[in-house]
Order: sequence, then C-alpha cells, then structure tokens
Amino acid sequence: MSYFQRHVFFCCNQREAPENCCNEHAAIDHFNYAKERVKALGLAGKGKVRINRAGCLDRCESGPVLVVYPEAVWYTYVDRSDIDEIVERHLLKGEIVERLAI
Amino acid sequence: MSYFQRHVFFCCNQREAPENCCNEHAAIDHFNYAKERVKALGLAGKGKVRINRAGCLDRCESGPVLVVYPEAVWYTYVDRSDIDEIVERHLLKGEIVERLAI
Repeated sequence: MSYFQRHVFFCCNQREAPENCCNEHAAIDHFNYAKERVKALGLAGKGKVRINRAGCLDRCESGPVLVVYPEAVWYTYVDRSDIDEIVERHLLKGEIVERLAI
Repeated sequence: MSYFQRHVFFCCNQREAPENCCNEHAAIDHFNYAKERVKALGLAGKGKVRINRAGCLDRCESGPVLVVYPEAVWYTYVDRSDIDEIVERHLLKGEIVERLAI
C-alpha cells in the first residue's frame, strides 16, 4: 500500500511574462485552499491524503494543472469550487471528476 | 495510460536549522543531477519520465527522500551513485532498488 492513499501535486511554477504558467492562475492560492480543505475534512496524513506543491509539471498549455497519484489523474481548475469538487469527490470518495480531467 | 510513464518527485524542502530537512542533504543538487541523467539517457518527456521538484513530502525523518509514481515507491539516497542506480534500474528498467527503498 502507498504511504499516502492519494498524493496530489499542484504545479506552482512561475514563469516570466508573457509565458503562460500555472501560477499566473493563482496556483499557490488554490494549493493552500486544497490543503486547508483536506485538513478540515480529516483527510490529511499518512495512509490518507497529502497535498503538495511542485515545480513545473510540464503541462503549461493545459494549466493550471494538478495530478493525483497513484491514479495518475490530471485536472485543471478555475476556482475554489473546482477544488471543492476534486476534494469532495475524488479525494474523499475516489470518483474521477470527468469535467475537470485533462 | 499515465501522461508520464514514471513521475519522480524530489523533496527539496528547506527548513530552518536545526530541523532536519531534505535540502540539508543537497536535495536540489541531486534533483538537478537526476534531471540531467534522465535527459542524457533519452528518457525525458511525455510517455516517458519526468523529474520534478516538490515541496515538503512530509517524511523528514527518512530524508532525503524521493518518490516514484505511479508505483508509489519511496527512496532515500546519499550520493550521485545512488541516483545513478535509481535512474538506471528503476526508471530505465522498472526494477525496484530495494537497498534504497524506504
């Protein structure tokens, strides 16, 4: 079994303007929000969920992106309600949120 | 199939002394070295291998650490020869390097 049941990586890369990058889409804010939500739901920790920041995940054209392992499901998101849906459906129940999957 | 066949995350976190942290063990240097080696072997890119830096992976007591997904295999390392072994055995051939696994 994985050390974490689900390990989530947010691309938080910052490139120089005018290049597109995840952090131009408030990636760090959404990372922090996801971390708070997972903690509030009691999902954080060993054997459960870990929310991590990461350097460039090399999918800039689809950004902002995050990836959930070990399922290797990639998502994009626009706002906090998208993060809520990923947390409450995928991280809590194991359902893939098809409308945000890339 | 995964966007990347294997996605490797190096914990590159820096905590304040005297706390132990991966970056006190030259994590960023080893991350850069792994990235170079993977590129040199033609393993880098979509459908192949991605080497990423990450924030704290929350396994400080076992640090320095890296994790390979989707297999969810965790490793520690001491020097470049350990990174060579992980790259040449796990990333290239799919073998787990038991002596470095945690």
